[in-house]
Amino acid sequence: MSRSTVLRPMTPRAVGRLATYRRVLAGLAADGVAAVHSQDIAGLSGMTPSLVRQDLMRVGYRGNPQHGYDVRRLDAAIAATLGGPRADRAVLLGVGNLGRAILQYFRTAHPQLQMVAAFETDVDLVTTRCHGVPVRHLLDLEEIVGGEQVRIAILAVPAREAQAAADRLAALGVRSILNFTSTTVRVPEGTYVENHDIGLALERVAYFAHRPEEVRA
Amino acid sequence: MSRSTVLRPMTPRAVGRLATYRRVLAGLAADGVAAVHSQDIAGLSGMTPSLVRQDLMRVGYRGNPQHGYDVRRLDAAIAATLGGPRADRAVLLGVGNLGRAILQYFRTAHPQLQMVAAFETDVDLVTTRCHGVPVRHLLDLEEIVGGEQVRIAILAVPAREAQAAADRLAALGVRSILNFTSTTVRVPEGTYVENHDIGLALERVAYFAHRPEEVRA
Repeated sequence: MSRSTVLRPMTPRAVGRLATYRRVLAGLAADGVAAVHSQDIAGLSGMTPSLVRQDLMRVGYRGNPQHGYDVRRLDAAIAATLGGPRADRAVLLGVGNLGRAILQYFRTAHPQLQMVAAFETDVDLVTTRCHGVPVRHLLDLEEIVGGEQVRIAILAVPAREAQAAADRLAALGVRSILNFTSTTVRVPEGTYVENHDIGLALERVAYFAHRPEEVRA
Repeated sequence: MSRSTVLRPMTPRAVGRLATYRRVLAGLAADGVAAVHSQDIAGLSGMTPSLVRQDLMRVGYRGNPQHGYDVRRLDAAIAATLGGPRADRAVLLGVGNLGRAILQYFRTAHPQLQMVAAFETDVDLVTTRCHGVPVRHLLDLEEIVGGEQVRIAILAVPAREAQAAADRLAALGVRSILNFTSTTVRVPEGTYVENHDIGLALERVAYFAHRPEEVRA
């Protein structure tokens, strides 16, 4: 491809693939591998070699046709493209079963995410700590989040409360929402929402469990 | 559309949409609403009216141009299309932080899913119960699952163990996998896999939190 090729805008899937390549590279580095070719990255990440090369054109490191990419340099280039190590501040709305599960999981598996606070409307849960995170009443959302530069929110409230919660978060400058509720939400332009409706996932899994003939690879 | 129109095969997204319409219909029924038009279902579910009508062509209930669809009849028709109420049997592999969170959440939010057992390789966790589900050693997977007609598995093991686990599950007749691991898995044709890599979701959320100009609706 020529240098004048215009890269397509970064998509959520491309971000996910680049993060996946970093995992592959971390594994190679741990095994003492110093250099890798795109076809090997492809095989290890489950992508096609051409897609890998297309993705890696974004990161400003070309590699070498003979030796491939230096594993550490490539990882650094991808990390820089993804924004580098960053301790993002986040809030969780909804400390029910799902919310508590999320807090516990993120605390151990993703400690780089700083959970500033979790919010609830059940007064029995407020002013406690849950998995190390203070739980406050949802009424205090603006007061607590206001000056904290929180860009990420995790939504685990009941469906009927999701839109109102999303509206308040957007007004507070939250730019990215991980939505675990059983509904979609409308957000201002420029706000990223990723939906993970586990209930619907279960519906799909249950449906296709009985219909192998309808499953497409 | 004429009766001779061939419906496209059911896709995971179509299953998810039909399940979403059922949620909308349940809400309408709870509010005492007896009949609904496709455009209202569309508005309440966040879909376009034409997509709703296309989806509902699958369920064998046409409705009435003047009165619309009877809420209860339509819900029953969708339920029948999705396979009707069914107590599916499932197993969970991996009782780490994520696995425990999943067990707790599914127990309360999705009790129709019968968790036969959870499996672990950490001997300290085996022979206990976790959120009401017996925890057994992964070595005993075939013995416990063998005769149980378990069609659904939830995968929450470390990435390096995921493919081996998927292979064993496929051999046992599991037809549908909800994959929460940080890797993809290969499965036989006809086996459905739905990937929910929360780590990658977080990477995407963190990336776009700082790049509103790259967010597309």
